[in-house]
Amino acid sequence: MTTAETRERLYLFDTTLRDGAQTSGIDFSVNEKIVVAELLDRLGVDYVEGGYPGANPTDTEFFETKRTQKARFTAFGMTKRAGRSAANDPGLQQILAADTDACCFVAKAWDYHVKVALGCTNEENLEGIAETVKSAIAAGREAMLDCEHFFDGYRANPEYALACAKTAYDAGARWVVLCDTNGGMLPDDIREIVSEVIKVVPGDHLGIHTHDDTGHAVANSLAAVDTGVRQIQGTLNGIGERCGNANMISLIPTLLLKSAYSERFEIGVTTQKLSEITSISHAFDEIINRSPDRHAPYVGETAFATKAGIHASAILKDPATYEHVTPESVGNRRRVLVSDQAGKSNLLGELNRLGIDVAKTDSRLDRLLAEVKQREAEGYAYEAADASFELLARRTLGEVPNFFDVKSFRVMVERRFNAMGELTTMSEAVVKLDIDGESRMSVAEGNGPVNALDKALRKDLGKYQLAIDGLELVDYKVRILNGGTEAVTRVLIESHDKASHRRWFTIGVSSNIVDASFQALVDSINFALMTAKVG
Amino acid sequence: MTTAETRERLYLFDTTLRDGAQTSGIDFSVNEKIVVAELLDRLGVDYVEGGYPGANPTDTEFFETKRTQKARFTAFGMTKRAGRSAANDPGLQQILAADTDACCFVAKAWDYHVKVALGCTNEENLEGIAETVKSAIAAGREAMLDCEHFFDGYRANPEYALACAKTAYDAGARWVVLCDTNGGMLPDDIREIVSEVIKVVPGDHLGIHTHDDTGHAVANSLAAVDTGVRQIQGTLNGIGERCGNANMISLIPTLLLKSAYSERFEIGVTTQKLSEITSISHAFDEIINRSPDRHAPYVGETAFATKAGIHASAILKDPATYEHVTPESVGNRRRVLVSDQAGKSNLLGELNRLGIDVAKTDSRLDRLLAEVKQREAEGYAYEAADASFELLARRTLGEVPNFFDVKSFRVMVERRFNAMGELTTMSEAVVKLDIDGESRMSVAEGNGPVNALDKALRKDLGKYQLAIDGLELVDYKVRILNGGTEAVTRVLIESHDKASHRRWFTIGVSSNIVDASFQALVDSINFALMTAKVG
Repeated sequence: MTTAETRERLYLFDTTLRDGAQTSGIDFSVNEKIVVAELLDRLGVDYVEGGYPGANPTDTEFFETKRTQKARFTAFGMTKRAGRSAANDPGLQQILAADTDACCFVAKAWDYHVKVALGCTNEENLEGIAETVKSAIAAGREAMLDCEHFFDGYRANPEYALACAKTAYDAGARWVVLCDTNGGMLPDDIREIVSEVIKVVPGDHLGIHTHDDTGHAVANSLAAVDTGVRQIQGTLNGIGERCGNANMISLIPTLLLKSAYSERFEIGVTTQKLSEITSISHAFDEIINRSPDRHAPYVGETAFATKAGIHASAILKDPATYEHVTPESVGNRRRVLVSDQAGKSNLLGELNRLGIDVAKTDSRLDRLLAEVKQREAEGYAYEAADASFELLARRTLGEVPNFFDVKSFRVMVERRFNAMGELTTMSEAVVKLDIDGESRMSVAEGNGPVNALDKALRKDLGKYQLAIDGLELVDYKVRILNGGTEAVTRVLIESHDKASHRRWFTIGVSSNIVDASFQALVDSINFALMTAKVG
Repeated sequence: MTTAETRERLYLFDTTLRDGAQTSGIDFSVNEKIVVAELLDRLGVDYVEGGYPGANPTDTEFFETKRTQKARFTAFGMTKRAGRSAANDPGLQQILAADTDACCFVAKAWDYHVKVALGCTNEENLEGIAETVKSAIAAGREAMLDCEHFFDGYRANPEYALACAKTAYDAGARWVVLCDTNGGMLPDDIREIVSEVIKVVPGDHLGIHTHDDTGHAVANSLAAVDTGVRQIQGTLNGIGERCGNANMISLIPTLLLKSAYSERFEIGVTTQKLSEITSISHAFDEIINRSPDRHAPYVGETAFATKAGIHASAILKDPATYEHVTPESVGNRRRVLVSDQAGKSNLLGELNRLGIDVAKTDSRLDRLLAEVKQREAEGYAYEAADASFELLARRTLGEVPNFFDVKSFRVMVERRFNAMGELTTMSEAVVKLDIDGESRMSVAEGNGPVNALDKALRKDLGKYQLAIDGLELVDYKVRILNGGTEAVTRVLIESHDKASHRRWFTIGVSSNIVDASFQALVDSINFALMTAKVG
């Protein structure tokens, strides 16, 4: 048994917010970047690469302040241009001006691209690498270099590719990252080429950056580690250009649970955090508004599911011999039969986390479990809607007063030519509710049906009005479950309270999108009132 | 250069219809099995495992006749039970009665499971293997054995696992297949254990069967081939229990296009067939009613897509240096995504791809570029909405007739107690439009405002009605851009035409979600009419 002291440190470098942002269809807002950086920081990766300051307004704003506590906050950018000094390269200076711990520069390592894409000489490119790395170090940053097209470049001109890597290392780069930019390498290629590189740059200064174009991004990363590399670059859920980058969510469990790695290496992610990786993966999918991959390794809904068949009864006898790791270790669960025992202790854990103290034998716990299961079967996803979950839990435990009753609502959206001959769209909502037996009816216009309903709902809440004054809807996400005529709509609403700076998520599910939205709005207001302890 | 004569034959064994049928949510009908078997036969795999005759009525009916022309049609089943002869085992006799070329039997290779799941002795299990293989050969079939839990079994008791493999081989089995049933092995485990097996069973009699629980199903299959195994089992699009089986659609291009394999091995799939693999993959998704994985290696919609950025202009100069294989070789295509960074040459490339011929100097091109940039600044994302892009492009170039004019719409959603005292939600939409100067007004109810609008819009399109008959809305995605009071809603709609099996995406952007949805609906119908060349 190897102890922590004798294990080597393996570093995780997350590029979800930089290379992951190259995924078609994904455009992070500044706020989403902040949320993802916090998520990664809590997960325990060593580096969070946040983007390319100066390249676009989003990244420039995101880099105005350091966004991580523990992880090294990293800016990405190009090495300085040929023909000017580092001090006179405005692009480079913008990267150095960002509030970061580290800078990751990208340089061409394939001589063909140096000529065609940069239009400079091989020597100028090497000089750019050296000067850029030195200027980052002089600015107090940890410097690293992504060697773009490293493997293809090595095949074409091994001496030059190695010279790029060695130049960065000699200039003081903490990490020299070997990138399979086109994603075409297989594990044997990685092993063969890395074992040559390691002769000129030590493995504990080498990183690996892979893409999944042949389905080998994870295997290639591990092949590099096997050959001596000590930093892995990857993204949450493997997002990234084309077929994606190496999937951190697949790599981390393998590194922590498979003895070939866990006995040799130590990483920054704890086994405690590992038990949250399923919900982290799903939370990230919610942020990018994508349905979780049901078949994803470790975290997929069916990753520990067995279709009743020749295995099912044997699995119940001794699940361990049918599972390569325990579902609990990655925060997932076994799915074999309709009635499973998994839920109760998970639920207790969640309640404890919320500060709700309830005994394991309390019958209300069974009622809550049944309710959650029933609702999740209908399409609710409480892992993404903490406020709706807390509300449901406290209600079932009898702690939440009935602040108000909605009697009915009506919303109309009309698009037509107005008196001036212009096409306009109007949304109007009417909400009828009772507070303490007194009926109230409000009408409001909005820039859409949900906004109109939100305004009408909050227009006259009587004695509660003050408690929801600072409340605002900051995000709204819609997903169609199933599809076809049986489609069910799931709405997630993110609310923010300007007074307390709290954010919370609520959920609604219905075949009608307006209905689902209204449920989530009502949950949000009830949550605000519950936490304000009014009534 | 190695010639075909000196290359070794590598065999592909497809188990889509047997192990793939264990995928949660997938249930093949007999007719679907027939269609998939034909597809596989034309693709050129060597074996098509069709199911388990006798285990269920579907499989029994499917095996009434041989369903392949070239591929060896294979039945799956268990080895004979302990305590009875092969001739007296009704399960085994049903398998032998099926009209097949080959039989693949599964046997436990982990002594623990022999005891717990079978409840027989290790020797009885070995005798079952030998007798079953011999009886299949006596019945004129090619016999093979799936060694279930082979790798875990080897870790627990290597002598017994090897004895199972050797017993099958000695009894005359053409193939002994090593199964990583729990999917927990990594490539190094595979290499280590296979190199031991190969000492007792020759590699050209060994097969590999992997699962993707750590994301290594493909890498593990290739690691086995590297170590000497000569048959790979996999499924179309990697379907299968839990995280799926080895993905044939990823394996085949690697075997044919990567020199490490193409120079050493010959497979039954031709490079001509390879150029159809993208459409084969998508056709299979149609059969199982699943949206194709946009990021799948080789065949995904974005597998050769680049978001316009630092790479885009260089890619257009020399695509080969940015692509690990050519998109044409796998029947896919290059996509340089249209985005706000798009330049004129990207746009021209996209237009050429759509078959739109326009000169670089044409002033309409500048108008289109300005329009795209203006709209992307407002929140449109054409990279995700190819149909809306094509519509916009052809309209700007003056090619699309004005099929109909929407004069106004109105939609109402109401939730209240009905006459029975139940809370119900009702959605009703009215759409007014002109076709050839004739006014038409339609009203419809739906299970939500968008559904009601969709129905009302398509209720009476006059002379166009026939062209949109097979149209259906299959997915609907909503995104709030910016957030706060300046929020803009972006709606993406995926449509499907049941007649042509085409899928397309349209987009709408507005501060009002209903408005945005309506734009996307109208675009979808216009796209359908444009491609149907009506009017």
